[in-house]
Amino acid sequence: VARRFERVTIAGVGLIGGSLALAARAAGWMGEIVGLARNPRTLAEAQRRGIIDRGSLDPQEAARDAELLVLAVPVRAIATVARQCLPALGPSCIVTDVGSVKAPIVAALGPLLSPPRAFVGGHPIAGTDEQGPEAADPGLFRDQLCILTPDSGTDAAATESIEQLWRAVGMRVERLAPKRHDEILAAVSHLPHVLAFALVNAVTAAGIDLARYGGGSLRDATRVASSSVEMWRDILIANAPAIDIVLSRFDHEIARLREALRSGREDELVRLLTDAQRQRRGWRK
Amino acid sequence: VARRFERVTIAGVGLIGGSLALAARAAGWMGEIVGLARNPRTLAEAQRRGIIDRGSLDPQEAARDAELLVLAVPVRAIATVARQCLPALGPSCIVTDVGSVKAPIVAALGPLLSPPRAFVGGHPIAGTDEQGPEAADPGLFRDQLCILTPDSGTDAAATESIEQLWRAVGMRVERLAPKRHDEILAAVSHLPHVLAFALVNAVTAAGIDLARYGGGSLRDATRVASSSVEMWRDILIANAPAIDIVLSRFDHEIARLREALRSGREDELVRLLTDAQRQRRGWRK
Repeated sequence: VARRFERVTIAGVGLIGGSLALAARAAGWMGEIVGLARNPRTLAEAQRRGIIDRGSLDPQEAARDAELLVLAVPVRAIATVARQCLPALGPSCIVTDVGSVKAPIVAALGPLLSPPRAFVGGHPIAGTDEQGPEAADPGLFRDQLCILTPDSGTDAAATESIEQLWRAVGMRVERLAPKRHDEILAAVSHLPHVLAFALVNAVTAAGIDLARYGGGSLRDATRVASSSVEMWRDILIANAPAIDIVLSRFDHEIARLREALRSGREDELVRLLTDAQRQRRGWRK
Repeated sequence: VARRFERVTIAGVGLIGGSLALAARAAGWMGEIVGLARNPRTLAEAQRRGIIDRGSLDPQEAARDAELLVLAVPVRAIATVARQCLPALGPSCIVTDVGSVKAPIVAALGPLLSPPRAFVGGHPIAGTDEQGPEAADPGLFRDQLCILTPDSGTDAAATESIEQLWRAVGMRVERLAPKRHDEILAAVSHLPHVLAFALVNAVTAAGIDLARYGGGSLRDATRVASSSVEMWRDILIANAPAIDIVLSRFDHEIARLREALRSGREDELVRLLTDAQRQRRGWRK
């Protein structure tokens, strides 16, 4: 089933798109790579670094005759860029994305592509605090998890091709329903970000200087509050329903701890702390 | 005002008590150091490492004629151990502690000591995940913050002596009212721990495997959930009223973020995220 893509378009040649181009080309999985970006300097930098063979600011020019289109633009722009590229894509082009939220993207893009074209939703869970083609690193994906989210309408061979591509750059690949992906990511990634933003604001609202009194526990708990506002605005809005549900679960756990403290029920408090400690100590890396 | 203590008793010769003994002796601030512990192997290990000159399992024997008593036992045991040592202390002994909660300890111990004896509440904010005399490190306190919590009844010269002692082992020293200390620590330390415990339990309750799906943001946000259950049970219970108040502040910040997501108010969401990002990025270390 392995399929080398002779003509690839990568929309967004930053950290994820750029790293994929470098890694897949090194593994022999990509032929000519054309970059699409909004800024000519981004394209020039990507070309200088050997990420792309050439670039264009025009979606249809960049996408012409593509056998593979990778949408590595911010979550909010994915559907728009896909529609702009659509008329120019090759007749059996596979389209995939790298967005952190999947259900709305799969719902928007799946119906746009009719066989033999196909859309396969994807989310390589890898990243650093850096951005742009300068941060591209062919080793970024090694040993990390990539979740693919085919649904009942997704072409099986296309899904297999995309799975092979991510495996070729070193990732473990798992398939999940789009909704389950969004539930899991809401819990393991979006919730920790929401908590970090709220924690910084709560400490600040209490008139307490972070730098003066903050120690290791506050530092770790708030690290991701320094993330990109634009990126997290988009992710939180796109996955708002799943985040709302997991926030209810979290509120419930907070309420249990709080009630144990208020009522002085030490046995219950110890049980809650012991459960958490056991799970966290069981997670080694 | 600098005062060398010729006869020192350290109750609890683990990470904090042991590190203080090593650092203060190296700086020339302590003469004979006698250790008090519940386990003879702890005393043997502390003696082997040069933390103490000798040890005892008997409070009155350990405390006999002490000029300085350092209570470095768990928060819950501080008042009990202080009472056990009291009859044997030297006539102008200074008693201090290293507990993470101050108002209840200051309220319990202040009245026990009448001049020329004195109690000075203290909290050196330093630590690692390790415990016991094996973890003692004379460099543990360097450049970290120590908060002293004298109240209106605390002897000024005794407070100054304890401040000089912590400065001698490398700490910045700040004085705060016991209640303000507890409010600040509730926000910058106890709250992050409560959130970490609740976050692990919420993710687990959602049927999600931490090790399989958890990435960097969850790892950092939950790191302290692997802390000692006994230690955190004691701290959370001792500071429950202040934690309850700061949990209300935190709930309020979560509710603001959640409402912005539910109502799709992007301007409000961006404002909350930007506030947090600016504060967190401003905290450099």
